[in-house]
Amino acid sequence: MPRLVDHEQRRREITTAARRVIAHGGLDAATFQTVAAEAGMSVRLIQYYFGTKREFLVATFLAVVAEAGQRFEGPLAAMGANPTPREVIRTILTAVLPLDPQRHEDALVLAAFHAAALTGGVVGPEDTIGPARYLFPIFAQQLRIHRSLESSTPAEELDAQLLVLGGSGITQVVLTGNNTPDQALELLDRLLDRFLSV
Amino acid sequence: MPRLVDHEQRRREITTAARRVIAHGGLDAATFQTVAAEAGMSVRLIQYYFGTKREFLVATFLAVVAEAGQRFEGPLAAMGANPTPREVIRTILTAVLPLDPQRHEDALVLAAFHAAALTGGVVGPEDTIGPARYLFPIFAQQLRIHRSLESSTPAEELDAQLLVLGGSGITQVVLTGNNTPDQALELLDRLLDRFLSV
Repeated sequence: MPRLVDHEQRRREITTAARRVIAHGGLDAATFQTVAAEAGMSVRLIQYYFGTKREFLVATFLAVVAEAGQRFEGPLAAMGANPTPREVIRTILTAVLPLDPQRHEDALVLAAFHAAALTGGVVGPEDTIGPARYLFPIFAQQLRIHRSLESSTPAEELDAQLLVLGGSGITQVVLTGNNTPDQALELLDRLLDRFLSV
Repeated sequence: MPRLVDHEQRRREITTAARRVIAHGGLDAATFQTVAAEAGMSVRLIQYYFGTKREFLVATFLAVVAEAGQRFEGPLAAMGANPTPREVIRTILTAVLPLDPQRHEDALVLAAFHAAALTGGVVGPEDTIGPARYLFPIFAQQLRIHRSLESSTPAEELDAQLLVLGGSGITQVVLTGNNTPDQALELLDRLLDRFLSV
């Protein structure tokens, strides 16, 4: 059977199981044993696809990030040639807000990676900063379009970072249960008002 | 010796040791054993002052929060009768940004409590939401003063939350080492520009 199974499919099954384990128990809960149990596979099979714990953790992080990207790529493409900067930024940020069970689980996984990066160990900040770094220039560019600026100024760089951090902050208060998804969207729209009003 | 020792002093020594342990290893690292070792005390003495793990964890969280409060109370009092809303909000937020080693350690402790609250267990979101809830009405009131509003509107409530979340987001990128304290202050000032400009 194994040689007929698509390798990418198998790896995805493993990272999907790892996501569930991490969402419930944090990064410390994810071991070859717990992920194997969650995936209904043997530890040896997990080890065959991912040689080290670090390898399956990084793959799990990247799987969450890739799905978040897929979540906003479709809507962005559907907007046509000239979407408003506000629409672009809002579409990207809502793709990562925990507004449904899957995004909630994904946000818990990303929060667990952030927490683990703070105490050091198998993963560090250099493993988890990628997605934010990817968004900064996109948001800065949208802000320049909105403000009819020809070239980059420090203000747009700062605002781009603050929008990403704001989205992350809104995510956290939904994860703790202190805000509902509807309240999160209200906060997001207010955040966009403040950064895209002038 | 024990009966001559001030009880509050002893409890503070224990929570100070717990803070160091949590800052380095997260909440899971804090046990009666590790905190006793860090404090140079016996496990029995820690248990005498704090009956349960939950008790010393909550006391540790509150100790960090109380010190953050003390950090901005003095500067706020020194501002006299009519500080500008921007000064008030900036003073409070800089008191919790990780701009020096102690605040860095404190911010790591608060981040560890947040992470632990997400996975559930000994502490939950209801144990950690207090400080943010305390700041919301203070910031909303300052925004109303700044905007010359007589009564509360939803916009100020949302902005107050976004300012707290923004401060928290800026804190996280300093903790990960992706931003320096100087860059954090630059982000903070830009955040205040966006919320206190109109």
